[in-house]
Amino acid sequence: MALANENYLKTPEIYCFDDIDKRVNAYKVLHPTAKIIRLGVGDVSLPLPGEVVKALHYAVDEMASAETFRGYSPPQGYDFLIEKIVKEYRSRSILINKESVFVNDGAKSDIGNIGHVLGRDNIIAIADPVYPVYENATIMSGRAGIMLDDQKWSNIVYLKCNEETGFKPELPEERVDIIYLCSPNNPTGTALTKTELKQWVDYALDNNAILIFDAAYQAYVSRQDVPQSIYEIKGARKVAVEIQSFSKSHGFTGLRCGYSIFPEELIVYSHEGEAVPLNKLWGRRNANYTNGVSYIVQKAAEATFSRKGKAEMSAMIEYYKRNAALIRKQLMLEGLKVYGGVDSPYVWFKTPGGIPSWKFFHTLLYDFQIIATPGIIFGQAGEGYMRFTGFSSFEDTVTALERIKNQF
Amino acid sequence: MALANENYLKTPEIYCFDDIDKRVNAYKVLHPTAKIIRLGVGDVSLPLPGEVVKALHYAVDEMASAETFRGYSPPQGYDFLIEKIVKEYRSRSILINKESVFVNDGAKSDIGNIGHVLGRDNIIAIADPVYPVYENATIMSGRAGIMLDDQKWSNIVYLKCNEETGFKPELPEERVDIIYLCSPNNPTGTALTKTELKQWVDYALDNNAILIFDAAYQAYVSRQDVPQSIYEIKGARKVAVEIQSFSKSHGFTGLRCGYSIFPEELIVYSHEGEAVPLNKLWGRRNANYTNGVSYIVQKAAEATFSRKGKAEMSAMIEYYKRNAALIRKQLMLEGLKVYGGVDSPYVWFKTPGGIPSWKFFHTLLYDFQIIATPGIIFGQAGEGYMRFTGFSSFEDTVTALERIKNQF
Repeated sequence: MALANENYLKTPEIYCFDDIDKRVNAYKVLHPTAKIIRLGVGDVSLPLPGEVVKALHYAVDEMASAETFRGYSPPQGYDFLIEKIVKEYRSRSILINKESVFVNDGAKSDIGNIGHVLGRDNIIAIADPVYPVYENATIMSGRAGIMLDDQKWSNIVYLKCNEETGFKPELPEERVDIIYLCSPNNPTGTALTKTELKQWVDYALDNNAILIFDAAYQAYVSRQDVPQSIYEIKGARKVAVEIQSFSKSHGFTGLRCGYSIFPEELIVYSHEGEAVPLNKLWGRRNANYTNGVSYIVQKAAEATFSRKGKAEMSAMIEYYKRNAALIRKQLMLEGLKVYGGVDSPYVWFKTPGGIPSWKFFHTLLYDFQIIATPGIIFGQAGEGYMRFTGFSSFEDTVTALERIKNQF
Repeated sequence: MALANENYLKTPEIYCFDDIDKRVNAYKVLHPTAKIIRLGVGDVSLPLPGEVVKALHYAVDEMASAETFRGYSPPQGYDFLIEKIVKEYRSRSILINKESVFVNDGAKSDIGNIGHVLGRDNIIAIADPVYPVYENATIMSGRAGIMLDDQKWSNIVYLKCNEETGFKPELPEERVDIIYLCSPNNPTGTALTKTELKQWVDYALDNNAILIFDAAYQAYVSRQDVPQSIYEIKGARKVAVEIQSFSKSHGFTGLRCGYSIFPEELIVYSHEGEAVPLNKLWGRRNANYTNGVSYIVQKAAEATFSRKGKAEMSAMIEYYKRNAALIRKQLMLEGLKVYGGVDSPYVWFKTPGGIPSWKFFHTLLYDFQIIATPGIIFGQAGEGYMRFTGFSSFEDTVTALERIKNQF
């Protein structure tokens, strides 16, 4: 009898973001002419930059000719791209080697799949609130235990991350093995400073734990004391996987490319306590579970490292950050408690009077035709909060903010 | 202490196909001017067909303009592609619905990842010889047990598939839960007839087992009695996942696109015996573990379904099949025992005098500068066999065959 992985049945049938779409669609049916502004979703809106487009056309033509056609990519990615990535780190005085870089089709796959190379008995720590995939992947992989009365899972350690801590995660009181960290953070927009991040690296070093550092929003960092890479912290290469993406920095959400760094010094353990380099395990997974990333997409990613490509990236980031800054400013003027929006495209705010997230979601949708993401989607500690993003157009952002001016 | 998934340590550190590359590179260092012909690897050589190239350029331009830019794909894939897939099945009198189609980045990922939605206690059956990923994924997921003296795993049921059975897998004597089937087969090139495939569907129906039907070479089928889809067999939708790919039919090995069919009728079970639709589990995995496939690649895949696109596909298939037929013919003239090469790009043959695969690999490389794939890579029953493929150029294939004429 073919058996199901019953852990899957413990996750919600509808993926949380699809739930938002469902409710928006219900509104649209009743209000077909409403001009809805999406200020909630983490998807970009600007078209692909010129250097990327040029590289794509060129690569397509290469694929159209027998002499320059490319079949299977090397499973870790093409050297031309990996070398650029290594060089970019080096320009920030971070030494990683080629063998530690794995090109992928975006951050999400690796964030989930990394669980497969890790033992089942690890205790996983996640912040609350947090990007839902960390928790869902933990549940689906059978590491969550049972759901308790407070909607939390018995085997997951939830890191305190609320108003009290400035929506930055606090070190756990109990011992944990794997810690998901995201900075700049989705959804709260907060970014960990060097001193704060060092605490986590030190914790991992002291406890033989590892950090899965989701740096998808790294390009949004501008403050000097906020690291763009966890490897800026001494010792991090021994304990941290860094997951990067071209999605939010270069508008690749529809192209699909990212990369993960598994330093060769990064060690996990067998039950007998033997050291196992995680890089080697990931290499085996990569060889057996993927056939690499599209050649033309890797060429597009390569183009983002050119001088022109970098200038285009900066312009995109500035565009989205200007939106985020506007949102942040206006919400503060409205007297709301606001986080993020500085080193991040995300603005996290407390609802007026702390009303429940879904209720305020409906207020924004039905009264102002604005879509926001309810904080409760990201965990219990997100209740009474909302996420806005700077990813809409400037014009839509301004219009949305005018709609809610002096309304709360 | 962060723990490794120790099952990974049970798989070979070097992926089998990389092992071939390593040995070829060693030869190249000593013989830098040798004209080596690759008749071993399953990668295509013809450039992308015109309709695909056109669609790619068009989609790139769409991504370059704010009005037509596309961000995240729907996780299951775009409707424009899924509708074409459904229609293609319908044209062969197979009814599947949109909800059962999942677009992916190639067959390999789903073949491995499907293990994640299935319970750990399932007994997995694979043919011997077989595409190595089926076995490796089973080992990595902790379902293989321990390695026995004969290099087989205690918890895997190996389906007899040798000269005696015409290199077609035989029904298992013990009860199994999950069966990997590949037809037309990699590596043996054999294809299961309707009558033979019906046995497997009936077995699965009788035993509440499921079939993972790898149909990556479906486009190579020409004989009337060989199904192109397992759903041509009555009842198959209740027991079979079908995994398809654009790689070998349309030259997409470097573009990355495929799709899997999880029919809504397909049921697996909880430990309590409750029915669980596998489609729903896969949908949850898909939403949490991927962000879909590149828009431009999905547009390229769509183009393969046009009248012109289909004609181009047929021409490519005929090209590779002509190569395979030539190889088959010549090896038979050499007096060797040959399988496949009819409904498949693969030709599987017994080495002269049954000498070990790796030994004959070195003979072909050092004496004839030809690369073949040693059968032993695909399992113990592959020892003394080799795989040639029709994926080289016609000219190289002819040259290679001239080199070995009357040599064995």
